[in-house]
Amino acid sequence: AEVKKIAVIAGDGIGPEVVAEAVKVLKKTEELFGYKFELEYGLFGGIAIDEKGTPLPQETLEMCQRADAVLLGAVGGPKWDNNPKELRPETGLLGIRKALGLFSNIRPAVVFDCLKDASTLKPEVLEGTDLIVVRELTGGIYFGEKFRREGANGQEAVDTCVYNVQEVERIVRQAFEIAQKRSKRLASVDKANVLETSRLWRETVNRIAPEYPDVELEHVLVDNCAMQLLRRPSSFDVIVTENMFGDILSDEAAMLTGSIGMLSSASLGEGSFGLYEPVHGSAPDIAGQGIANPIATILSVALMFQLTFGYAEAGQVIENAVKSVLDAGHRTGDIAVDKSKAIGTKEMGDLIVAAM
Amino acid sequence: AEVKKIAVIAGDGIGPEVVAEAVKVLKKTEELFGYKFELEYGLFGGIAIDEKGTPLPQETLEMCQRADAVLLGAVGGPKWDNNPKELRPETGLLGIRKALGLFSNIRPAVVFDCLKDASTLKPEVLEGTDLIVVRELTGGIYFGEKFRREGANGQEAVDTCVYNVQEVERIVRQAFEIAQKRSKRLASVDKANVLETSRLWRETVNRIAPEYPDVELEHVLVDNCAMQLLRRPSSFDVIVTENMFGDILSDEAAMLTGSIGMLSSASLGEGSFGLYEPVHGSAPDIAGQGIANPIATILSVALMFQLTFGYAEAGQVIENAVKSVLDAGHRTGDIAVDKSKAIGTKEMGDLIVAAM
Ligand SMILES: CC(C)[C@H](C(=O)O)[C@@H](O)C(=O)O
Ligand SMILES: CC(C)[C@H](C(=O)O)[C@@H](O)C(=O)O
Repeated sequence: AEVKKIAVIAGDGIGPEVVAEAVKVLKKTEELFGYKFELEYGLFGGIAIDEKGTPLPQETLEMCQRADAVLLGAVGGPKWDNNPKELRPETGLLGIRKALGLFSNIRPAVVFDCLKDASTLKPEVLEGTDLIVVRELTGGIYFGEKFRREGANGQEAVDTCVYNVQEVERIVRQAFEIAQKRSKRLASVDKANVLETSRLWRETVNRIAPEYPDVELEHVLVDNCAMQLLRRPSSFDVIVTENMFGDILSDEAAMLTGSIGMLSSASLGEGSFGLYEPVHGSAPDIAGQGIANPIATILSVALMFQLTFGYAEAGQVIENAVKSVLDAGHRTGDIAVDKSKAIGTKEMGDLIVAAM
Repeated sequence: AEVKKIAVIAGDGIGPEVVAEAVKVLKKTEELFGYKFELEYGLFGGIAIDEKGTPLPQETLEMCQRADAVLLGAVGGPKWDNNPKELRPETGLLGIRKALGLFSNIRPAVVFDCLKDASTLKPEVLEGTDLIVVRELTGGIYFGEKFRREGANGQEAVDTCVYNVQEVERIVRQAFEIAQKRSKRLASVDKANVLETSRLWRETVNRIAPEYPDVELEHVLVDNCAMQLLRRPSSFDVIVTENMFGDILSDEAAMLTGSIGMLSSASLGEGSFGLYEPVHGSAPDIAGQGIANPIATILSVALMFQLTFGYAEAGQVIENAVKSVLDAGHRTGDIAVDKSKAIGTKEMGDLIVAAM
């Protein structure tokens, strides 16, 4: 088989532990399906600040640029929280998104059967919830000019939110295409009653919509969307929105499933290249103890197989293995009802590999 | 008693119906407590667009400026949704906030006993939830420069988010003071890992915090706050945040209580002047049918008594009357379990007046 290059970035906190289990899963698919993966490891985030003096070293960026896909654990932690901007893990995250042209963040929010009671929502409200938030990732207020200046009333800070038509078009088209392969419902979220960027957004969505006549489109204001996600989560299929709104709404959507420790995400650019990572963070409080849940990272590999490599069958095998291990009652501490029976990170990884 | 001037803006949709009941409550307090209110009525929102060609006529603004407080029903509706910006009800809303200097929006999110099952959250999660969102209302991306321009990649839209130190200070101080009178916990919400305005915000909060040593302060990132509101709503007391984040989070907080038809809000400036309105919208689908729930508007009067007039006892009398009518089992359609037994807007208003 063709050799696929995967850049592996373990990162900080529980990152290295969960990534190690995902790598076991990758190896297992080589054995089962005859794939060939070439893994290259690089420093990123807090550990890169400590060892290289920058959250995104040039060699790590080049390693990602050489690769077909990137697998990322997690970055950040209190150690670096009070650093100046250039020396913060988040700055590396924003930098890698921009440098790799990852303009689209795909965040499935699904409810795992075994976790439906973990949600703070009533089970009957949650029933059938299975949505994807498609978040624009390299534009908007995240990347516009930011500065301080002296104003009439003393010092002021400025952030600029900018979107051009092309940026909106490409993310919206991608969302329409995803919706076409799913339940054919798209909610476009903006604040068109206040923001000029949102008016451009909505105009662009309306101009493109006729090209996807099979997709039912609704425009939802961001404040209303924050409410509707709570009131009727299962009525959403695909939600597309700009960077800042997507940051907030994708986290709200993830939390309401109750399955945040199990959710994976993809950040995509033009073509098939993608960066895959769990939705959860670096969890510094439990790092190094061998108790973190590796499932979200393992499922990120399945997403990589589906979206970047077109290895649909192997992706399914991974998902089924996760499901069967959970169905057999195995749980890491974060999802265990009886914590005394919780298994560790490695054990969970091994069980999933064995079930494949 | 001193005559208090109240500017009454019924607005659109169900606005006139719910405001009429709130006015009955006002009159009843004149009788019970010897207060004197001088009510003046003005056009605003959609109806003002239709009759005066602008959502905020100069005479309405002047009426508000002459008054000690403003009582607002609701504005907006599909009829005006596709109008150009200057002819939209929202533009009037933003204009009145700015013109009256209403920099602070106070949104209590409480759970009404009789409605605790109406929430989509599990009762045990909701238990004890009683929080206030303090939202900055005249700054940030809502009021910064907005425009279109030709960029390198075609047309682009720009919104500017600006905050100066003074704007942050006054809203944050107000939030600290509210927290001091409650459970003494303040969550300041920002996106300091990305935005310059948020970094200014956080610095300002940290500089002021030592003046309120009895208030326990936490900084929460906006994406995390959207999650924590779902996970542990009862752990919040006062939340303070900038305009756009406040728009989203206050609606999320309101919806999770399940009591959105019952929640009131205050928009305050310097001094005691304030604008009071229900959190719910103009509900054009049920307008004119006499079935809307007037309770949120009636409770807005109670809030006006407490925050603007210092009529604490009368405010309490209104709140108790609402409670006793609900406890006796009376419900409008929106909150009735058995819809066939629902009472109308007027009947609900009359019952509350009778219970005072
Ligand atoms: C760490 C932060 C910069 C980042 C973001 O806001 O994009 C994170 O919240 C995310 O959603 O990936
Ligand atoms: C109508 C709209 C402009 C307004 C806002 O965003 O402030 C509304 O959502 C609100 O919260 O009062």
